[in-house]
Amino acid sequence: MQFSKLDDIGAFCRGLPKGDSQAADAAAARQHVLTKPPGSLGRLEELAIWLARWQGRDKPRLDRVAINVFAGNHGIAARAVSAYPAEVTAQMVANFSAGGAAINQVAKLAGAELTVEAIELDRPTCDFTAAAAMDADEFLRAFHLGFRSVPADCDLLAVGEMGIANTTVAAALCAALLGDGAARWTGRGTGVDDEGLARKRATIEAALAFHRDILADPLRAAASIGGRELAAIAGSVLAARSRCIPVLLDGFVATAAVLPLARLASDALDHCRAGHVSAEAGHRALLQALNLDPLLDLGMRLGEASGAATAILLLRTALACHNGMATFTEAGVSGRA
Amino acid sequence: MQFSKLDDIGAFCRGLPKGDSQAADAAAARQHVLTKPPGSLGRLEELAIWLARWQGRDKPRLDRVAINVFAGNHGIAARAVSAYPAEVTAQMVANFSAGGAAINQVAKLAGAELTVEAIELDRPTCDFTAAAAMDADEFLRAFHLGFRSVPADCDLLAVGEMGIANTTVAAALCAALLGDGAARWTGRGTGVDDEGLARKRATIEAALAFHRDILADPLRAAASIGGRELAAIAGSVLAARSRCIPVLLDGFVATAAVLPLARLASDALDHCRAGHVSAEAGHRALLQALNLDPLLDLGMRLGEASGAATAILLLRTALACHNGMATFTEAGVSGRA
Repeated sequence: MQFSKLDDIGAFCRGLPKGDSQAADAAAARQHVLTKPPGSLGRLEELAIWLARWQGRDKPRLDRVAINVFAGNHGIAARAVSAYPAEVTAQMVANFSAGGAAINQVAKLAGAELTVEAIELDRPTCDFTAAAAMDADEFLRAFHLGFRSVPADCDLLAVGEMGIANTTVAAALCAALLGDGAARWTGRGTGVDDEGLARKRATIEAALAFHRDILADPLRAAASIGGRELAAIAGSVLAARSRCIPVLLDGFVATAAVLPLARLASDALDHCRAGHVSAEAGHRALLQALNLDPLLDLGMRLGEASGAATAILLLRTALACHNGMATFTEAGVSGRA
Repeated sequence: MQFSKLDDIGAFCRGLPKGDSQAADAAAARQHVLTKPPGSLGRLEELAIWLARWQGRDKPRLDRVAINVFAGNHGIAARAVSAYPAEVTAQMVANFSAGGAAINQVAKLAGAELTVEAIELDRPTCDFTAAAAMDADEFLRAFHLGFRSVPADCDLLAVGEMGIANTTVAAALCAALLGDGAARWTGRGTGVDDEGLARKRATIEAALAFHRDILADPLRAAASIGGRELAAIAGSVLAARSRCIPVLLDGFVATAAVLPLARLASDALDHCRAGHVSAEAGHRALLQALNLDPLLDLGMRLGEASGAATAILLLRTALACHNGMATFTEAGVSGRA
């Protein structure tokens, strides 16, 4: 797939596959005859049926699970909107390569393949308070990188990010596309103090004012006040959808990254579930806006796909039950009185 | 350990070990230098520190995890308080043995050893609307069975139950020990209709009236309006505490089973975490009363330790990060700006 201009993505979003209703119905019927009161596995039942719909199998599998983490650097990092210096982005990418980060441990436990793509870290985006973060070509380059990163044969994709200052980027994108002002979406990220929080809000307000004429266009907003790692996440989630691969989203930044897709087509995230709700201030409201009910609520706020990867274990639990349990007939258990 | 009368348990509860503060402090110090913003793994950090406290190791392990499920039958099942006939208790125990139930699948995925103890299923407790469910000796027999069921060398215990009609038992026990009337604690269990719900409430109200003189005594209440599987859970959780083995509780019935311990000593459940909050009506309020913050909220209401077993995977995630991550110094990552 090659998108030669931003509008091509919008057109693509209006012709997405809808998933396999027959497989979903068969999975739901199976859930009804397993040895448990109907509905008593709660979300685990819904997850098995959701995986069936997108995999097109009434007994879904998770043989190959991909976790794709994208890293980017941001011009606005120079505005001291993070508790950590910008060099930490590249240092953490090295830590991912060495196997020392949280996501390395969780990916291994969850039986998933971790891929980290560092996107032009030595070329931060422009400071979006006074310029476009990226022009359309730069945005499309990162978007394509994400689009092409998804293994064609994977059973599930989880997406995450690393990028010092990118909760400011995510909050700006939410404020641009969902309104309600900067304060609603701005949190402490890696742990800024009150002054840092005020700088984040001021940075976002300046960006909203500077780019006010293009905020109604989701993809121009994503280019102008976004980031490369966010663009790549959006590309990978759209690629997954085009191949009917189910997706687990991570926290605030990863969810903000796919917000433009949802603004282009209301059903664009039907193949996604929110792995968790982050402790980062804006995430719960963003999930509500997207009608995504998170699987976990553990006060995590690390990013790097750590919440999504933890939720992979819940999908494995759902499928262990769905595929492994006996039916009432098989087990000789009486039905309802 | 041998408790010859109910009061012996109360005395035992007033001399429980407190856990290893030094190991907990060392684990907390380690969390602070791992390559992530402090606190950014949320509950996963707290869980690692909690495991360190009870295991007495700054790097805790989950090599041997025991899931103990206890099954019992109830005189009040004859009052049609469940959507399923009483014979299902024994049929599900057979299903556990054959490996066909949800808990078999989840235990295997979580790397845990499942033990199921069916307690005198052919001898239901008495109908507690007009008699004591158990006398003190019967209660102590089940309690001891639970106490002795805990492997001395296990790193974690998860507890669960199976027993047709036992959400009525659990609700009666909550109403007895926490007040607020039957309605607050009564839910639909395996799925009773409105009439079944009314029968449950009436059964509980009758029990509260009949036993009103002993409700202030947690253990007499647990014998008189309890059940054998609940008594065994209480015994196993107390045995775990005496050996400093951390415990994951399951849903409404398993949590109600340990409520008497908390009434005997306010710190008796410090070694416990709630694996999940069930969709069963009274569970959230019960957890709040016990100051337990559940790890999962997935709308599950199956019992048989399924929620606790799912939460084992979160403990494994917490330890994978705690034990496996690099420190800032090891990884050469810069600290806060």
